[in-house]
Amino acid sequence: MVYLTRIERFNAAHKLWVTEWSDEKNVEIFGKCSNKNWHGHNYKLYVTVKGKPHPLTGFIIDAKKLGKIIRDTVTDKLDHSNLNLDVDFIPQHLQPTTENLVILIWQQLEPHILAEGAQLHYLKLVETETIYAEYYGEA
Amino acid sequence: MVYLTRIERFNAAHKLWVTEWSDEKNVEIFGKCSNKNWHGHNYKLYVTVKGKPHPLTGFIIDAKKLGKIIRDTVTDKLDHSNLNLDVDFIPQHLQPTTENLVILIWQQLEPHILAEGAQLHYLKLVETETIYAEYYGEA
Amino acid sequence: MVYLTRIERFNAAHKLWVTEWSDEKNVEIFGKCSNKNWHGHNYKLYVTVKGKPHPLTGFIIDAKKLGKIIRDTVTDKLDHSNLNLDVDFIPQHLQPTTENLVILIWQQLEPHILAEGAQLHYLKLVETETIYAEYYGEA
Amino acid sequence: MVYLTRIERFNAAHKLWVTEWSDEKNVEIFGKCSNKNWHGHNYKLYVTVKGKPHPLTGFIIDAKKLGKIIRDTVTDKLDHSNLNLDVDFIPQHLQPTTENLVILIWQQLEPHILAEGAQLHYLKLVETETIYAEYYGEA
Amino acid sequence: MVYLTRIERFNAAHKLWVTEWSDEKNVEIFGKCSNKNWHGHNYKLYVTVKGKPHPLTGFIIDAKKLGKIIRDTVTDKLDHSNLNLDVDFIPQHLQPTTENLVILIWQQLEPHILAEGAQLHYLKLVETETIYAEYYGEA
Amino acid sequence: MVYLTRIERFNAAHKLWVTEWSDEKNVEIFGKCSNKNWHGHNYKLYVTVKGKPHPLTGFIIDAKKLGKIIRDTVTDKLDHSNLNLDVDFIPQHLQPTTENLVILIWQQLEPHILAEGAQLHYLKLVETETIYAEYYGEA
Repeated sequence: MVYLTRIERFNAAHKLWVTEWSDEKNVEIFGKCSNKNWHGHNYKLYVTVKGKPHPLTGFIIDAKKLGKIIRDTVTDKLDHSNLNLDVDFIPQHLQPTTENLVILIWQQLEPHILAEGAQLHYLKLVETETIYAEYYGEA
Repeated sequence: MVYLTRIERFNAAHKLWVTEWSDEKNVEIFGKCSNKNWHGHNYKLYVTVKGKPHPLTGFIIDAKKLGKIIRDTVTDKLDHSNLNLDVDFIPQHLQPTTENLVILIWQQLEPHILAEGAQLHYLKLVETETIYAEYYGEA
Repeated sequence: MVYLTRIERFNAAHKLWVTEWSDEKNVEIFGKCSNKNWHGHNYKLYVTVKGKPHPLTGFIIDAKKLGKIIRDTVTDKLDHSNLNLDVDFIPQHLQPTTENLVILIWQQLEPHILAEGAQLHYLKLVETETIYAEYYGEA
Repeated sequence: MVYLTRIERFNAAHKLWVTEWSDEKNVEIFGKCSNKNWHGHNYKLYVTVKGKPHPLTGFIIDAKKLGKIIRDTVTDKLDHSNLNLDVDFIPQHLQPTTENLVILIWQQLEPHILAEGAQLHYLKLVETETIYAEYYGEA
Repeated sequence: MVYLTRIERFNAAHKLWVTEWSDEKNVEIFGKCSNKNWHGHNYKLYVTVKGKPHPLTGFIIDAKKLGKIIRDTVTDKLDHSNLNLDVDFIPQHLQPTTENLVILIWQQLEPHILAEGAQLHYLKLVETETIYAEYYGEA
Repeated sequence: MVYLTRIERFNAAHKLWVTEWSDEKNVEIFGKCSNKNWHGHNYKLYVTVKGKPHPLTGFIIDAKKLGKIIRDTVTDKLDHSNLNLDVDFIPQHLQPTTENLVILIWQQLEPHILAEGAQLHYLKLVETETIYAEYYGEA
């Protein structure tokens, strides 16, 4: 069993804001992340699939094909978007935190990886130089 | 003459949009950067001052003090902001491109660096992994 | 189950030296790391907690709060310190190797992470561009 | 149980080419990687061993010794080589993909790590800025 | 006057070999770089243009257009190539060292940058983690 | 005229301390950098030489030879050293700040670069992720 990782990137705006809360509570909990006029990040997404290398090609999955799947199903939709407003697979009631994004991205990617005969193993989403979230599809 | 550089960071939202232009022209010229709902970046700012090291301290300028000047006059205002809407030193008629930002940041920083007896030499503003702008204060 | 990582840094001096050994044996085993006058490193600490994102905030733990815990309990004590002499939670009889440090840092952090309702999952301590240690709290 | 990682590098040429296939099929499957005149990469190899820190030295394994093992048994043979033609432990019938290389490198390293009383835990081989393979010795 | 830099990448094989020299002399001068079976690198190319930001767009040059020029005239030809054999703008009698490449790339790029109304200022070509060449078009 | 850069590294301990000053003044001016028990850094040194590529070899200077000069005359003396106590070319009366170090390193390197028929152009010494000094040999 070998693991192959492909990295893609996207740049997006977002804010953290719970509509049920007062302005004061939002500022108290989310600090500068609650700026009503948005802020943004350069995100870096790691997608790891696992499997056995094919005896002839030596591939678990063609890394170029994996890159295209990631861009078509996830990063082209997220790139230069507003994560709170523009993305069909991010529900309005969920905060676009790195933790929530990594689960939502998994749900988008997994069927397309399986359709290629590979198995999605791991996602890492890096939001800043000092913060990232990881997910293994665990309930 | 020695050059000392201090790096600070900020995360911000922006869009590129010329109000005098039609929607079509904005999309044609700025592409995905014209998304009306904004997008964003993790910016990295390099500030270089020059001078002779002080014979006793070995400093051109105290790097901690330089960091504080950059944060107080520039990056605390830019961090988690909307560059089109929130920042007093970015005029509404200028696009918040990396090229324009680096000139505007120079104008903010220079008097504070001079007040410390040092000379501002160079700014670099990194917008993404593949794009950055530089400025030496040249007309 | 999602994993969230926060990175903090510190710069410190140390040496590797077993007092029960002769100078020759220390040099033989530890090489340049045994320099009696110390040497030092820029350390980079990765702290990973796990949990389920909160349904309202989307947080496992507030990353800013996690950063403050790491600085207050660990990196502010280690920064600009001598790891052999200055740090209350590093016992004199243990060498300040990356392997030992990562265990000692775990012991400092774990109760504070638990007090926030999160679970410490993983630590990585990077000593140089080519060497790092990892720990999962395993006996 | 603590994990210690040492990173080494090598630069090499390779191509992906199945001799049983026509030129057209090779180009269709491998794209630009099938260039008959070769192409190349700067590879970065992460080698992780696990164990308990020695009570006196604080080492799982001497990182300098680990570096020497990796260079002597693997990276000195791979550096400035042609991975299809020059390396005794890469069989001609296997494509030198990152996935296959990481398994072959494991087989080379494992006995030498065991001979030092440590346990090989993990390998990562980074081929480009956006692609890497990982292996835990799993069948 | 502001400087804008765009970074592109390519992976290629090459060797250093003076045909007028004996095998022994080639090995003596070029060491492992003279391996007849080639070796390779992941190259990273920085292209800096200078100019005044346009009053409406804030651009010196559209960074996306600059990226396309670099790929069309240089990096698409170099990517997955053999630098000694495959590239029309690298003469056979010149060694494909980083120093020579950066001059040859300048000659390719300059007319296309000028045609966009911008001025090529600087190139940096990074060959490995520890070696790079720079060129300002100076005779 | 082309510029070639070689990067080398060293890890060292130091402190900033003016013996003519009181303890209080040292702490006031140098903060945590004045810790009497030292602290340390992973330093990264960039050495840039300039010249014309040799018509046969394509070299300004053999990068391997340049690396050996840097290690022999500078970084082997600095690595795992105490910059205040152990290094013959750092005078006791000068603080081992990045600014002073970069001048002292220039004085060590220049004659050896000239002896190879090349010209030393630029040094960069990186002390932390956010601070570095540069020097062009200017008085």
